[in-house]
Amino acid sequence: MERIYAIGVDYGTESGRALLVDVATGEEIATRVTPYPHGVIDETLPGGSRKLGQDWALQHPDDYLEVLKRSVPEVLRMSGASPERVIGVGVDVTACTMMPLDAEGTPLCLKERRRNDPHSWVKLWKHHAAQEEADRMSEIARQRGEAFLPRYGEKLSSEWMLAKVWQILNEAPDLYEEADLFMEAADWVVMRMTGRLVRNSCTAGYKAAWHKRDGYPSKEFLRALDPRLEHLADTKLRGPIAALGTRAGGLTEEMARMTGLRAGTAVAVGMIDAHAMVPASSVVTPGKMVMAMGTSTCHLLLSEKEVFAEGICGVVEDGIVAGYYGYEAGQSAVGDLFAWYVEEAVPEYARQQAAVAGANVHEWLERKAAGLRPGESGLLALDWWNGNRSVLMDADLTGAIFGLTLQTKPEEIYRALLEAAAFGTRKIIEAFTGGGIAVDELYACGGLPQRNRLLMQICADVTGREIRIADSIQTAALGAAMFGAVAAGSAAGGYDSIVEAARRMARVRKETVRPNPEHVLIYDELYREYTELHDILGRGGSGALKRLKVIRARSR
Amino acid sequence: MERIYAIGVDYGTESGRALLVDVATGEEIATRVTPYPHGVIDETLPGGSRKLGQDWALQHPDDYLEVLKRSVPEVLRMSGASPERVIGVGVDVTACTMMPLDAEGTPLCLKERRRNDPHSWVKLWKHHAAQEEADRMSEIARQRGEAFLPRYGEKLSSEWMLAKVWQILNEAPDLYEEADLFMEAADWVVMRMTGRLVRNSCTAGYKAAWHKRDGYPSKEFLRALDPRLEHLADTKLRGPIAALGTRAGGLTEEMARMTGLRAGTAVAVGMIDAHAMVPASSVVTPGKMVMAMGTSTCHLLLSEKEVFAEGICGVVEDGIVAGYYGYEAGQSAVGDLFAWYVEEAVPEYARQQAAVAGANVHEWLERKAAGLRPGESGLLALDWWNGNRSVLMDADLTGAIFGLTLQTKPEEIYRALLEAAAFGTRKIIEAFTGGGIAVDELYACGGLPQRNRLLMQICADVTGREIRIADSIQTAALGAAMFGAVAAGSAAGGYDSIVEAARRMARVRKETVRPNPEHVLIYDELYREYTELHDILGRGGSGALKRLKVIRARSR
Repeated sequence: MERIYAIGVDYGTESGRALLVDVATGEEIATRVTPYPHGVIDETLPGGSRKLGQDWALQHPDDYLEVLKRSVPEVLRMSGASPERVIGVGVDVTACTMMPLDAEGTPLCLKERRRNDPHSWVKLWKHHAAQEEADRMSEIARQRGEAFLPRYGEKLSSEWMLAKVWQILNEAPDLYEEADLFMEAADWVVMRMTGRLVRNSCTAGYKAAWHKRDGYPSKEFLRALDPRLEHLADTKLRGPIAALGTRAGGLTEEMARMTGLRAGTAVAVGMIDAHAMVPASSVVTPGKMVMAMGTSTCHLLLSEKEVFAEGICGVVEDGIVAGYYGYEAGQSAVGDLFAWYVEEAVPEYARQQAAVAGANVHEWLERKAAGLRPGESGLLALDWWNGNRSVLMDADLTGAIFGLTLQTKPEEIYRALLEAAAFGTRKIIEAFTGGGIAVDELYACGGLPQRNRLLMQICADVTGREIRIADSIQTAALGAAMFGAVAAGSAAGGYDSIVEAARRMARVRKETVRPNPEHVLIYDELYREYTELHDILGRGGSGALKRLKVIRARSR
Repeated sequence: MERIYAIGVDYGTESGRALLVDVATGEEIATRVTPYPHGVIDETLPGGSRKLGQDWALQHPDDYLEVLKRSVPEVLRMSGASPERVIGVGVDVTACTMMPLDAEGTPLCLKERRRNDPHSWVKLWKHHAAQEEADRMSEIARQRGEAFLPRYGEKLSSEWMLAKVWQILNEAPDLYEEADLFMEAADWVVMRMTGRLVRNSCTAGYKAAWHKRDGYPSKEFLRALDPRLEHLADTKLRGPIAALGTRAGGLTEEMARMTGLRAGTAVAVGMIDAHAMVPASSVVTPGKMVMAMGTSTCHLLLSEKEVFAEGICGVVEDGIVAGYYGYEAGQSAVGDLFAWYVEEAVPEYARQQAAVAGANVHEWLERKAAGLRPGESGLLALDWWNGNRSVLMDADLTGAIFGLTLQTKPEEIYRALLEAAAFGTRKIIEAFTGGGIAVDELYACGGLPQRNRLLMQICADVTGREIRIADSIQTAALGAAMFGAVAAGSAAGGYDSIVEAARRMARVRKETVRPNPEHVLIYDELYREYTELHDILGRGGSGALKRLKVIRARSR
């Protein structure tokens, strides 16, 4: 029988990837990464010298098309798959990664007149310059008793759509007026592919406070922020919003030429990268927390119940798998934190010893750190190098290390950072279980779990839970391809639901990571210390971290 | 006129140095360092495989003689000075650095029978394994209302003589019985040089709770610790105690042969290295705080008044300069902390850039850090990598860094460590001024002030005080030589008091370091944050640091 394929296109922070998958088995046939030509724009605008502010992070929209143009033809070529056998395409992107468009759907940054205006560019998820707007918005929502607020842990993030839009209005009001639409990059790519404006329930729900029954926040609330925002939802955020797996449309002739795919190929509505990983990790039922681990970690969980608990960044009905409430929480620096450590604080001798041992520095640190017992270093860290997403939802917090002595060694610091990431995850798990939502098993996916066995063991030991690891090393792209197969539907050889697709296409590794009971006991103790310091420095016992950031901003 | 000389022999942690000085002018004619062949013994005993406990730090007594044997003849040779023109020798040693001796004055560790017993060796000042004894001793003294306790900031240190002796009694009672004497290394070296047992008021006062009028702690107190300790002061700590500058005796024939000096040359009683630096920095009057800065920093101050204030490690009448109360406080990791950072946490690229710039890593970091404004990094550190001596007197505290982000750079961390050292010094200054003792000027001496101009500027900015820097780069050895000249006396061409010797032999650099008023204001703010975190983590608001250390000890 001739094979049938779907393609997932996964847009990360630094690069995009296309993955061609066998629809019947989930077998990953070919994959190709295209680094973004412009990377993350956080110093100066392309072609300009204007210095961006602290906390700014932008992208170039052409880079997304470049991934389609380069990677999709390449996976077809590598696999030898005929375009006729590719039934669907799914697209996932980091979120909220958003941009302003003109009435023709052209990003404003591509217009000569606007290219020197930072607000015309794509604002990446980790653009944190709208903190003031986020704080005021949360405060106003709280005062007004807005029903949507508890669904987002009582705080709207500076990373999200409404804060980013409001920042544009505040800092570039004429650009705000000129914008015909604000769109998630995920929806924009799908619009470019299909010629149709269809937003998705995942980004709308998790990143723009949209609700399946109530819609976006009310006109009254938006007016309370600023009268000019009153009609935002009906105008610049307009367009139908569809659940994941919905067919947005068929590939246009132009895009068919660019990608080598057949015109009319089913394209699923866009989705968030992390959320695509849930079914791709085989999770389509409650009680199984998926940890999408990369530069940051996103924690995703399905439940039949809707509860509001501290630290839950979002709960969206049908946000991931139809029929369930999808919960999201997260840690804002995980892989990034380890990478920072290796780049900025690993001494030369460690690199030399690693080279002698034939390992890279990460591997060498992992080996040495694996030889330490829990607690042996005397170190403890608060993993807030990029603020704290869950459970404190405070981007102004910063990282800390305690217990340093003249005897402290690099592998000890490295292990303390892995442990801090695991303690942060335990805080999130306890927020869910404290809210009455069971977390029975952990599923890990993304790049880190495959590369860092010690991190997985420490996560199991700290949380006292067994961890299953997704078999795919490109889980988001697989998830996107699965939704592409659902968008194509069973009549075309795909599936009619993501549950069916998951049954056939998703896999976890046989070997699981089980907690070591001795370590669990010691980590229970260390976690009490983590909690004490977490609460003192994160909940206002000492406001020093936040005041240091104020002094820092003033001194720059 | 033919020159007259004195020699100072300065015993540090890793090496010893002889310095030959012109008595009339203080000119430093020749110097020679001899590294200790056995270094710091903190892993296994010489010739043995027995692993030492955490916090242990020992030395080999033969290493002290090795310094006399190698360095003294060498400075004579280098200078061409005739032994007849060398009128006196002074000896300073780290303290409390102590050892048990048999009735012949032989260190017990040199006896075959005892060489595998760690307690028979010289316990270095930074041997911290007697913390339990120190804690119990302080507690018992407090309960009994012992008059000596307030002179030591209400706490006796684990580094000091009584805690170290008590540890020996507890862990090796037969060795305690066998010991005929416990001696400071400074006194032992002087005894070896002169054949006479004369202790000095400086180590006895600062390190053994001895008092000019009251003597050692009472029999009743010692008995309350352990009945076997009752007669300690009269037996194993026996011997006359003389003020600094006193002639202990003349050089023996044997030692004259070993050193190339004349038999009968005046030898001053021993002294503590840091305390020798006070007159060598030209300070012989109140109001001038001397910071003896090296691996750790010792803060020394003269006053006409005796007051008791938190954080003062010791106040000893005639402890430094006769006629004044000598105050001591300290920070237990300063140069050591910066060295730890450079060794264990400076990334390879910094070394490469330093090499390209033709600088060593310390210099490169200093240059880059000097380009930062106060507060710009957002970082703050607690400088407790080796515990906190003043003002908290708690060896179980550990270091911490706050404010880390994914953008944090090595020079920012480095600067935060320099600032932490300066904040620690400001805490000490405020303890003195709060206790009614003026601190008008700062005098810096030791290796660091000459090498690290940025550290001096930050100290001036953080404390808001002008700093003078000792002209000598071997201030302790110069001070020892000055006391050697006093031991010889004016009749032999020396001096009759250290005040006279300081007038002729000590110098500070012309250029002083003045506070930058803008920086003073920002540092006032940062110091408030330092104080908040210092008090939370150091005074029991959170006991996390100490509990981490308990867990660590158990996990090893």
